Amino acid sequence: MAETVFDKILRGEVPCFKVYEDEHVLAFLDIGPLSEGHTLVIPKEQAVTLDKLSEDSAAAIGRLLPRLCRAVMRATGCASYNILQNNGASAHQAVNYVHFHIIPKPGSREGLGIIWNAHPLEKSGAADLARRIAEGVEG
Amino acid sequence: MAETVFDKILRGEVPCFKVYEDEHVLAFLDIGPLSEGHTLVIPKEQAVTLDKLSEDSAAAIGRLLPRLCRAVMRATGCASYNILQNNGASAHQAVNYVHFHIIPKPGSREGLGIIWNAHPLEKSGAADLARRIAEGVEG
Repeated sequence: MAETVFDKILRGEVPCFKVYEDEHVLAFLDIGPLSEGHTLVIPKEQAVTLDKLSEDSAAAIGRLLPRLCRAVMRATGCASYNILQNNGASAHQAVNYVHFHIIPKPGSREGLGIIWNAHPLEKSGAADLARRIAEGVEG
Repeated sequence: MAETVFDKILRGEVPCFKVYEDEHVLAFLDIGPLSEGHTLVIPKEQAVTLDKLSEDSAAAIGRLLPRLCRAVMRATGCASYNILQNNGASAHQAVNYVHFHIIPKPGSREGLGIIWNAHPLEKSGAADLARRIAEGVEG
């Protein structure tokens, strides 16, 4: 995979405002925050998207999230927040290295803006779709 | 915490289109999808928001995500997607039970819509903010 700024941050060649590090994970402030406390969590294992990350690295990120979210909320005094992880340019991924955003939501004009254009699930095809996903998980 | 529809789904009192289940986690199709294959992942442990979830349950969800994302993408033929997890009504949380969305992004008008109103990080306060978050994680 192509070199990204996150590889350079992990190697210490680009500085960051670090908030957490262990053998699997690094977390630091986003330099283009949507709100105060906007934090990124990345695995030390290189992967472009979440589907290409190992289960162990993904579990390490998951395990850290509750504690890190509490710390971000305590430091900012914000109670609402979003976790976002984008895969693919059309899904708003800007750095081609898997990263989770923790984005405090202090008010309607700050933090992540969400457009939610939902439709009712088409029941006729849903059982088949669920079966095909389920087979993929087990396979 | 108050009873939600996800508690009823977990007890089997409300049906769902299940795609995965193990001792920690249940995954099923969202009945109000943003795109085909929109899937929800919930812990069996009750928690309203991610900051209140145990590390073990959060790790179990993290561990499942790469495999489940691959299965959703394979079943839908979609390569781009977003992971979203909302905490608090102002952050678009609609059911008061922690849940992760896997939302395929097949085109600009389908899937999750994102408004990204970023600002440069204020370097003057960033070191102090990072330190306060870091102390919270360790504490």
